[in-house]
Amino acid sequence: MYEKGVRMVDISEKKDVYRECIAEGYIKLKKETINIIKEGKAKKGDVLKVAQVAGIMAVKKTFELIPMCHPIPITGVNVEFEIFEDKIKATCKVKTTYKTGVEMEALTGVSVALLTIWDMVKSYEKLDNYKETRIYDIKVVEKIKKD
Amino acid sequence: MYEKGVRMVDISEKKDVYRECIAEGYIKLKKETINIIKEGKAKKGDVLKVAQVAGIMAVKKTFELIPMCHPIPITGVNVEFEIFEDKIKATCKVKTTYKTGVEMEALTGVSVALLTIWDMVKSYEKLDNYKETRIYDIKVVEKIKKD
Amino acid sequence: MYEKGVRMVDISEKKDVYRECIAEGYIKLKKETINIIKEGKAKKGDVLKVAQVAGIMAVKKTFELIPMCHPIPITGVNVEFEIFEDKIKATCKVKTTYKTGVEMEALTGVSVALLTIWDMVKSYEKLDNYKETRIYDIKVVEKIKKD
Amino acid sequence: MYEKGVRMVDISEKKDVYRECIAEGYIKLKKETINIIKEGKAKKGDVLKVAQVAGIMAVKKTFELIPMCHPIPITGVNVEFEIFEDKIKATCKVKTTYKTGVEMEALTGVSVALLTIWDMVKSYEKLDNYKETRIYDIKVVEKIKKD
Amino acid sequence: MYEKGVRMVDISEKKDVYRECIAEGYIKLKKETINIIKEGKAKKGDVLKVAQVAGIMAVKKTFELIPMCHPIPITGVNVEFEIFEDKIKATCKVKTTYKTGVEMEALTGVSVALLTIWDMVKSYEKLDNYKETRIYDIKVVEKIKKD
Amino acid sequence: MYEKGVRMVDISEKKDVYRECIAEGYIKLKKETINIIKEGKAKKGDVLKVAQVAGIMAVKKTFELIPMCHPIPITGVNVEFEIFEDKIKATCKVKTTYKTGVEMEALTGVSVALLTIWDMVKSYEKLDNYKETRIYDIKVVEKIKKD
Repeated sequence: MYEKGVRMVDISEKKDVYRECIAEGYIKLKKETINIIKEGKAKKGDVLKVAQVAGIMAVKKTFELIPMCHPIPITGVNVEFEIFEDKIKATCKVKTTYKTGVEMEALTGVSVALLTIWDMVKSYEKLDNYKETRIYDIKVVEKIKKD
Repeated sequence: MYEKGVRMVDISEKKDVYRECIAEGYIKLKKETINIIKEGKAKKGDVLKVAQVAGIMAVKKTFELIPMCHPIPITGVNVEFEIFEDKIKATCKVKTTYKTGVEMEALTGVSVALLTIWDMVKSYEKLDNYKETRIYDIKVVEKIKKD
Repeated sequence: MYEKGVRMVDISEKKDVYRECIAEGYIKLKKETINIIKEGKAKKGDVLKVAQVAGIMAVKKTFELIPMCHPIPITGVNVEFEIFEDKIKATCKVKTTYKTGVEMEALTGVSVALLTIWDMVKSYEKLDNYKETRIYDIKVVEKIKKD
Repeated sequence: MYEKGVRMVDISEKKDVYRECIAEGYIKLKKETINIIKEGKAKKGDVLKVAQVAGIMAVKKTFELIPMCHPIPITGVNVEFEIFEDKIKATCKVKTTYKTGVEMEALTGVSVALLTIWDMVKSYEKLDNYKETRIYDIKVVEKIKKD
Repeated sequence: MYEKGVRMVDISEKKDVYRECIAEGYIKLKKETINIIKEGKAKKGDVLKVAQVAGIMAVKKTFELIPMCHPIPITGVNVEFEIFEDKIKATCKVKTTYKTGVEMEALTGVSVALLTIWDMVKSYEKLDNYKETRIYDIKVVEKIKKD
Repeated sequence: MYEKGVRMVDISEKKDVYRECIAEGYIKLKKETINIIKEGKAKKGDVLKVAQVAGIMAVKKTFELIPMCHPIPITGVNVEFEIFEDKIKATCKVKTTYKTGVEMEALTGVSVALLTIWDMVKSYEKLDNYKETRIYDIKVVEKIKKD
């Protein structure tokens, strides 16, 4: 009996090409929580600064988290936020010159940035048991590949 | 000039209490991709098995990913999936007996499980540039705390 | 007094060359345990699927585990199993195009895959205190280097 | 359709108990390589010192490597070596006071210590393509559990 | 021949006790660099916010970095900065209730916070080849142990 | 409202160039501690061997510790020590052929090597509450860049 199963796709033959990917996603929060963030009054500290650092660091950890992802020499990362009335949008742009794309890296950056926002405001959102808190609409918005 | 900023909340005084948290979330995929998963024909291998292992391992990495999370002695983790026509639901249950809850751990388990599904079926979804692929509705569905 | 001691070998002058390495190894298990694995009845879940994912992920962690190993841009990994009456053989193939070979990566992949099998069937093997369980004959079976 | 699959076993109900485990294993090397190690002439530096540190550090990383292992508060680790004519024996003892045993930790410590020896003497063993180099007989030699 | 060498000290018999440690250290920078930091004009972004997050995260990684350190259930971390005319002081306070102290954790938090400041202002300090940039006077300033 | 904040500098356009950096630093210890180290009598084991391995491994972890550092293909690392009457000097040389320099890697290697020395002799230095123990004068001593 013989088991094949999963494998990390062989990219040995691919060429090093400049690649870029932008992903985005949202976290829905209570209006009061949004105000606390805007006014910089969250007890655990500056919510978006921490989320930004966490997102950038997570991009570099993608290959450890997603089992079949290749280790990739990341050459640039941006994580930015836009604050709305009852939600925050996180955007993550990742760059590399390598044999495979960086979609998973950008998506992971967005996910961890949003999870970190949740963690930073947990005490305000958990009063009603996170009834409305959620992370949603994480997607790829742009992919660039330049030969 | 003096900078205070963020801190990891002090839980030294809290008691060790049994705690459990269930989180869930979804990934929207093309119907054809869902069929490929169901029939076990994905080129990279068994999608949900890999996603399940990735989700469980990510729970143990939460304290490394989310900057202000405490390291927590996790005592049990389940990650499960339900497959629908054009989406997959991931559920993650985490248990501990410790001074703080495991919401962030359960949410991280769900997020990484869903990101892994995306990675495993990337080649099918990227044909139309991930136009409809997205991760959504990640939330806490149950929290238990027993003194 | 002056201490020199160990160092990470300098490979700066070496050229990027396609390299491949296959390693293999065995775990000896009780026949009943082998049957439980084959029938997919292990309480902790699908033994070989988990071991496969673990082996692939470990390949990417080699440079963190083996102190003098260089970080290497891995371009492909396979971990496969062959089941015998009272043992399982794990094979790990690793590919890269880089300045140094991937023997340690392939050997680490095999080792962690076998350790994971052990962990997954611990409850069956520990009844007689692991009297016969052992991991053995981990070796390099092929090395390719193409200029 | 519903996927259950693997899980990290729930140890929430178990009591904190003193536990200890000793594992051992061997690496077969050429006699000349053994002499180089004994005389401290290996080009990469002191083989067994590096292997010892690597083994101890690997014990602390077990929960990251073996997917279903629990994070465990390790309270003591020893890694020791015995040098024979054409082989080296590594022994790893791990201690904890926790809800589950440390077999996997001791086995992982042994495995990584042996892999590190291999890495440190690679240049001597690869001359004949690692024809005889192998890691073998990794097993649990003692388990203690004190209430 | 038998090798003993290093070991991770056995703390199995020790009691869980509340412990706290404060460490501090300095980085010397050019006055112009200090002004850039104060005015929030550093090109890479908010220097001290990033250094603070890095220091807190490093505390949790101490057991991975310092080979003989035990994994410790950290219950609280603060990293703070005081800005002087030509230097910045970093202070790190770490808390736990465990069998061993947290000096190494506090010292590691300070070190990584200071290294991160260096990295964030590298472009200003490297103009004269880091002639005056240095990290100094990292020490323990307080240790508390309450039975 | 829009948050930009920190980013990982974009090095996509930079060329792969051979780069080398040497950093150094000191730890001040009691004369008796220095003697214990020299005579190889430290209870936890060979202080400098462990510190050397820790420093080399830390170089490879720099991108995980310093948030905005790029992952870099390190091609060589040396960590060495010089022992004085009441202090030890650590020197770390790092090499790469890549788009950005390795100052942070060399500085991190020095820092972790010195922290490890501290950890290894903690029991001798803590008698007077680390009154004189300190890490100081960590700096870059040479940077080479060859086109």
